Amino acid sequence: MSRIVTLTTDFGTADGYVGEMKGVVLARAPDATIVDITHDIPPQDVDYARLTVARFWRRFPPGTVHLVVVDPGVGSPRAALAVASDDRFLVGPDNGVLSAALAHPGAIAIALQVPSDASATFHGRDVFAPAAAALARGEPLGSLGSPADDPTVRRTPEPVRRAGGVVEGEVVAIDRFGNAITNLEGDGATAVVVGHRTIPLRRTYAEVAIGEALAVVGSGGAIEISIRNDSAARALHLSRGDKVTLRVES
Amino acid sequence: MSRIVTLTTDFGTADGYVGEMKGVVLARAPDATIVDITHDIPPQDVDYARLTVARFWRRFPPGTVHLVVVDPGVGSPRAALAVASDDRFLVGPDNGVLSAALAHPGAIAIALQVPSDASATFHGRDVFAPAAAALARGEPLGSLGSPADDPTVRRTPEPVRRAGGVVEGEVVAIDRFGNAITNLEGDGATAVVVGHRTIPLRRTYAEVAIGEALAVVGSGGAIEISIRNDSAARALHLSRGDKVTLRVES
Amino acid sequence: MSRIVTLTTDFGTADGYVGEMKGVVLARAPDATIVDITHDIPPQDVDYARLTVARFWRRFPPGTVHLVVVDPGVGSPRAALAVASDDRFLVGPDNGVLSAALAHPGAIAIALQVPSDASATFHGRDVFAPAAAALARGEPLGSLGSPADDPTVRRTPEPVRRAGGVVEGEVVAIDRFGNAITNLEGDGATAVVVGHRTIPLRRTYAEVAIGEALAVVGSGGAIEISIRNDSAARALHLSRGDKVTLRVES
Repeated sequence: MSRIVTLTTDFGTADGYVGEMKGVVLARAPDATIVDITHDIPPQDVDYARLTVARFWRRFPPGTVHLVVVDPGVGSPRAALAVASDDRFLVGPDNGVLSAALAHPGAIAIALQVPSDASATFHGRDVFAPAAAALARGEPLGSLGSPADDPTVRRTPEPVRRAGGVVEGEVVAIDRFGNAITNLEGDGATAVVVGHRTIPLRRTYAEVAIGEALAVVGSGGAIEISIRNDSAARALHLSRGDKVTLRVES
Repeated sequence: MSRIVTLTTDFGTADGYVGEMKGVVLARAPDATIVDITHDIPPQDVDYARLTVARFWRRFPPGTVHLVVVDPGVGSPRAALAVASDDRFLVGPDNGVLSAALAHPGAIAIALQVPSDASATFHGRDVFAPAAAALARGEPLGSLGSPADDPTVRRTPEPVRRAGGVVEGEVVAIDRFGNAITNLEGDGATAVVVGHRTIPLRRTYAEVAIGEALAVVGSGGAIEISIRNDSAARALHLSRGDKVTLRVES
Repeated sequence: MSRIVTLTTDFGTADGYVGEMKGVVLARAPDATIVDITHDIPPQDVDYARLTVARFWRRFPPGTVHLVVVDPGVGSPRAALAVASDDRFLVGPDNGVLSAALAHPGAIAIALQVPSDASATFHGRDVFAPAAAALARGEPLGSLGSPADDPTVRRTPEPVRRAGGVVEGEVVAIDRFGNAITNLEGDGATAVVVGHRTIPLRRTYAEVAIGEALAVVGSGGAIEISIRNDSAARALHLSRGDKVTLRVES
């Protein structure tokens, strides 16, 4: 067995916490291949982590173990989970960060046993990394604990259909480029409205001039509001939760 | 075949785009070794990426595949390139980020075929990562597309020789420590002049007191303006494009 | 031989210096496994690096090579070290960053030979990375240089016992979450006093309400001052060096 173990945390790297976790994984599963996803999730932002994990977890080959530690509830009675879903494994706290995998058909979730000598503040090192290493070594999921009781699944809010056929969604994330990613799908739409502004839907950035606003269907399938070669979030003052309406020309 | 695939992007890591690219590479080339160079290129700063790639690409062993995605023109007609140069491979957009390898004698460039179902906004995942994976698996370069037509090569501006033997260059980059890296070479110089300030050329930081300015021949071979244990860019208000003149004592 | 080589620097990643180091390691030790610890140590902050290395170095399996380059004294006569300690190897400048390993019983330190063509400003690439690669290939420590003369060991300041049984320590680090990590151990304490504020010692964050201050024994064994789901450093204006006093109820 030589499995990939990916890491997604909000720890940053400078303090050495991620280093401790990597050491624990490699000491227990020397043949594992460590792959960093990110350590720059905004501190304790469970929903940001949920959306990030949803993007990448199924892109990796079967057998991959995804270790996800964004865990503001560490030390509370929240469960520690290991999940098998679509032939991948995921390990992390029961706060919604693993929602994409838990909501996938056939997902199985186990509540990990917490060793009595685990730190009360760092389950990433003492609970989740050892579980990821065990899965990377090929230990069966069931050996890590008992079936989890109703694990937390958080979902991106659905768009709402208003009177007159108006579809109202919202900005669910701002990415590094300042693109505002919405919960809207593009079928048939020709523009989106945010505030008093109507923004045309285009196929690609290159269809507008540099500095102009446009909406595109982003790489995750949802409509994004962008400015070519600039930050839409900054220029249009967009943030998570802002309402966005689809305009469909008839 | 078990090849190294390095990654250089301006994506940051938090949004999961890099995670997606790594998943695509490893799903298609399970034996590839992923090595992160950086995901912190300033957003859409093609020239910054060009200088960074120039530093490291030939340090890696023959056979290495360098995946470079700083791509403000994604979705425009700019070509997608795969390059073989000095026994390494590079994959990225045709905007100058691969200049160092393209300018190397014997370089061969291929224009990648863009799959019809590729996202219009994320060729990193749908075009460049699959090409890097194919090269990592040992597929021949020529199988990935057709010869590229006059790929873009950007060059650092050359210093200019002014009347009276004065050599005028400029600051081409500011690094994390606030060192201002110029396009000047040091032969025979004893100092550089920037604004109204003359800064002595020394062999090493330790030859001046802490907090004092000096010029040194940096690790890339060009003259850098530094302050020992501080940021020259901040203290001397230096930025990219500032003029710097060589002083040669006779 | 196929050894893990970890990297800890203050270089950031964008400038390509870390890329150069990784290339040098992999060109000389193709079977080495590169593991990033961090490149985000605050620039030239030797003590920050020392504390980070102390956290993770023994978590990795025997044989691991830790490459640590936070090196404001590059080019000065400070020695370049390779250390064998507790079956791990460490390579870095003789400025205290390797203190944890040097202070461990049985540590052996070698002063590396500096090649005559090494850059005067980048020993990470030209001295330390080649040494790490040599150790990763299994070359004996002794072949890399001669015994080091009294290498620098820096220690976290000890708490001071004041009159009346008062134990006075200090904040030694602020982590990414804004936790203020002290040099105090918890035995028998019920609270800590910082400024005019008394903060109760709890076992876990979940024992106080969100937004409330508490002290906990952190994952490294020392008392930390935290605010549940917020930054104690920001809310309580804490920084490195601030005095903290243990309160022991009798």
